[in-house]
Amino acid sequence: MRQEMISNEINILRDTFRRLLRRKANTNLGKLIDKTHPADLALLFRFFNELEQNKLFAIMKPNEHTGEFLGELDESIIKRLIENETPEHVAELIQYTTSNDKTSILNILDEEYSQAILDLMKSEEQEELEEIMGYPEDSAGSLMYTDVFTLHENTIAKDAINALQDHESSEMVFYLYVINDDNILVGVISLRDLVTTPQNTRLKDMMIRSLESVRPETDQEEVARIVTQYNYLAVPVVDKDGQLLGIVTVDEIVDVIREEATEDFFQMAGAGKDREILMKSSWDNARSRLPWLFASWVGGVCAAAVIGFFDNTIKDTLALAAFIPVIIGMGGNIGTQTSTLVVRGLATGRVNVGNNLTIILKEIRVGIILGILYGLMLGLFAIIQFVDISPYLGLVVGLGIAGSMLIATAFGSLVPLLLQRLDVDPAIATGPFVTTSIDILGVSLYLGIASFFLTA
Amino acid sequence: MRQEMISNEINILRDTFRRLLRRKANTNLGKLIDKTHPADLALLFRFFNELEQNKLFAIMKPNEHTGEFLGELDESIIKRLIENETPEHVAELIQYTTSNDKTSILNILDEEYSQAILDLMKSEEQEELEEIMGYPEDSAGSLMYTDVFTLHENTIAKDAINALQDHESSEMVFYLYVINDDNILVGVISLRDLVTTPQNTRLKDMMIRSLESVRPETDQEEVARIVTQYNYLAVPVVDKDGQLLGIVTVDEIVDVIREEATEDFFQMAGAGKDREILMKSSWDNARSRLPWLFASWVGGVCAAAVIGFFDNTIKDTLALAAFIPVIIGMGGNIGTQTSTLVVRGLATGRVNVGNNLTIILKEIRVGIILGILYGLMLGLFAIIQFVDISPYLGLVVGLGIAGSMLIATAFGSLVPLLLQRLDVDPAIATGPFVTTSIDILGVSLYLGIASFFLTA
Repeated sequence: MRQEMISNEINILRDTFRRLLRRKANTNLGKLIDKTHPADLALLFRFFNELEQNKLFAIMKPNEHTGEFLGELDESIIKRLIENETPEHVAELIQYTTSNDKTSILNILDEEYSQAILDLMKSEEQEELEEIMGYPEDSAGSLMYTDVFTLHENTIAKDAINALQDHESSEMVFYLYVINDDNILVGVISLRDLVTTPQNTRLKDMMIRSLESVRPETDQEEVARIVTQYNYLAVPVVDKDGQLLGIVTVDEIVDVIREEATEDFFQMAGAGKDREILMKSSWDNARSRLPWLFASWVGGVCAAAVIGFFDNTIKDTLALAAFIPVIIGMGGNIGTQTSTLVVRGLATGRVNVGNNLTIILKEIRVGIILGILYGLMLGLFAIIQFVDISPYLGLVVGLGIAGSMLIATAFGSLVPLLLQRLDVDPAIATGPFVTTSIDILGVSLYLGIASFFLTA
Repeated sequence: MRQEMISNEINILRDTFRRLLRRKANTNLGKLIDKTHPADLALLFRFFNELEQNKLFAIMKPNEHTGEFLGELDESIIKRLIENETPEHVAELIQYTTSNDKTSILNILDEEYSQAILDLMKSEEQEELEEIMGYPEDSAGSLMYTDVFTLHENTIAKDAINALQDHESSEMVFYLYVINDDNILVGVISLRDLVTTPQNTRLKDMMIRSLESVRPETDQEEVARIVTQYNYLAVPVVDKDGQLLGIVTVDEIVDVIREEATEDFFQMAGAGKDREILMKSSWDNARSRLPWLFASWVGGVCAAAVIGFFDNTIKDTLALAAFIPVIIGMGGNIGTQTSTLVVRGLATGRVNVGNNLTIILKEIRVGIILGILYGLMLGLFAIIQFVDISPYLGLVVGLGIAGSMLIATAFGSLVPLLLQRLDVDPAIATGPFVTTSIDILGVSLYLGIASFFLTA
């Protein structure tokens, strides 16, 4: 119901836009665009086709509203829309966006084209943007707002409020950052404390001195961790001397947390890390999913070789083949459970270098408990179903599934923890590696046990 | 490196605590507790054993610091720590937490015990808490701060600032909420606008009138969607008449987004939705993972029955058995990719009722592209590897894998979209359903094709 409601609001708005587009009612379209929240407009664009997007975009004027809209729009749509515009028009459009939105737009364009746009800007702004673009992708530097309100530590509260009145800024101002003679960040004051203390107090006598800051090259996940851990609304970004370069605000962090979760989701399923993959062509989509499937294909071919090796065992007891899917399936599934719990635990801080061994042992214990349970169930099923075949079949099948589940929990917990220690993102490689190994190890173990008990 | 660094800081702190615990240096422990940020202390508790947790908790005094610590601590740890305390001591400890932290602590205790604690509170507070506890779990009502700063619309800016100075509140105050004669919420003003406008302006002449609000029973995911979509720092919660009940702040929303992502992760892997599962006993852990594995077991048993049905086909061409793992494995993997993309797309708004058909067709196209590719590769492999067997084997294996991958993409996209329409959380049921169906359908199709081409 709830989700339906949201969908309905968006659908009604989309239908209104479409009706006006059909009627070519450009004046009314312009009005509707202005009345729609930029974030809603960006959401709607996901559901318009390319022609509709082009027509609407052509109506939009270079202004604050369009600037905010561009800041919220999906990258793949921005790229398509502005690739065919002149650099002059793009420069005009993006002048209303924040500096970090400008750089992320410039970063998705071809280098030559983005340089042409940069060349049209004032040299001061150009330098600033080039500096931001120099920071690594997904770093604090690429996320920060540079237009931060700072005051000297000797300022008194009254003058600070006056200064605030003179300072026109579109950025969020809830904290005031305090600097000393050397431009070094020395403290922070909340706007609320500023207005509620005696008006001739010096900032240095009321500011909070202990504050976490990050460097521009700090990864966005670390910034998100700090904001989440300490419930901050913003984190200051400082250079190596402690000079304030900008702030990363919580609204950016909310986006980071969602995006990182989406990337981890996709990577765990071996579908690449492109958040906008569903909006790409089927070819692009297939291409980013190909590598994991190739790993899985190689694993399957190895499993086929293993089964080929046990040819005679299977020929003697054909029923063995019937249990191959359940043995690798159960192993794969419990292995996926384990690796998902561990990978997510690493991302949320519940799993830490300090408790690795506990986690692995606990998972192996879970593998033993569930392995024995499902081993007994499947063994009994095999005995009843294939009553005319060797009574050992039940034993083989039961041991096979229990062993496969035990290996799966051990691998599923070991692999991500090892990858983490080797400084490889555990979300990327865990999924494919764990399921592929279990395909091979599961059948090897199962048929090995079978050839031991069932071969005359 | 980065993650290592965080781990190291936490590990050093943990080791210091342990050293002091061994020496029974309670005075120093008390000092170290006070010096450690409550959020860091809550994180550390995840890595202490139960005895260490008990000893440290016994040293903590009822104060603000302990209150914040309890607000950040994992539920399973809180439950264990305070279950053995007297209601009097617990009431004393939690008096320093916010009202929503109080209710979430009371909610994890036995009803009788939590009632005993409630009975010790002032009747006014008791009523307030009971009202909050009456809201559904994971609703705006259970997340909101009730201590909100409101002013009448006729107040002038200067008086508003004075009122702010008199109002002692521990909650975040960055917006002032404006009400009319009937206590109805009519607008909002940022603290910054308040201090930067002429001091005799009436609030009603400067406030923002259009603001999104939610009802106390609104689900937290919807609140998170609004905060994310419009970059809010807080959303007001109003009753059916429009009276302000409280606000949900962005720091709560950051936690909601992380928690919902974790739950979706675990559910997609069929591991239940308990975020603290890794901290539970192996038995509890095994119990919450049992249901999906049972579904997968039933699927495997059905697949075994299908394979048993094609007994003679396999006996004639034993090599068929060797390709069972790769055919269901590739189907399962591409199906998991598809369903992960769609489920996450539904959660982030990239997939919407409006574009369902496009998504399904696109996914099926991906299934065809990759199915043909891997079908050709596996078919050629089968022909080369088993050159002495019927040349049709390659055809059968190739068609089998292509068909299995095609079915997987169709099911993987259809199932979550159907569940969404039926108002069932697609994260819960998609994973098990898709992989289990593909186990059964994949082998049926493969062996069906085999019996058509290979049976004399």
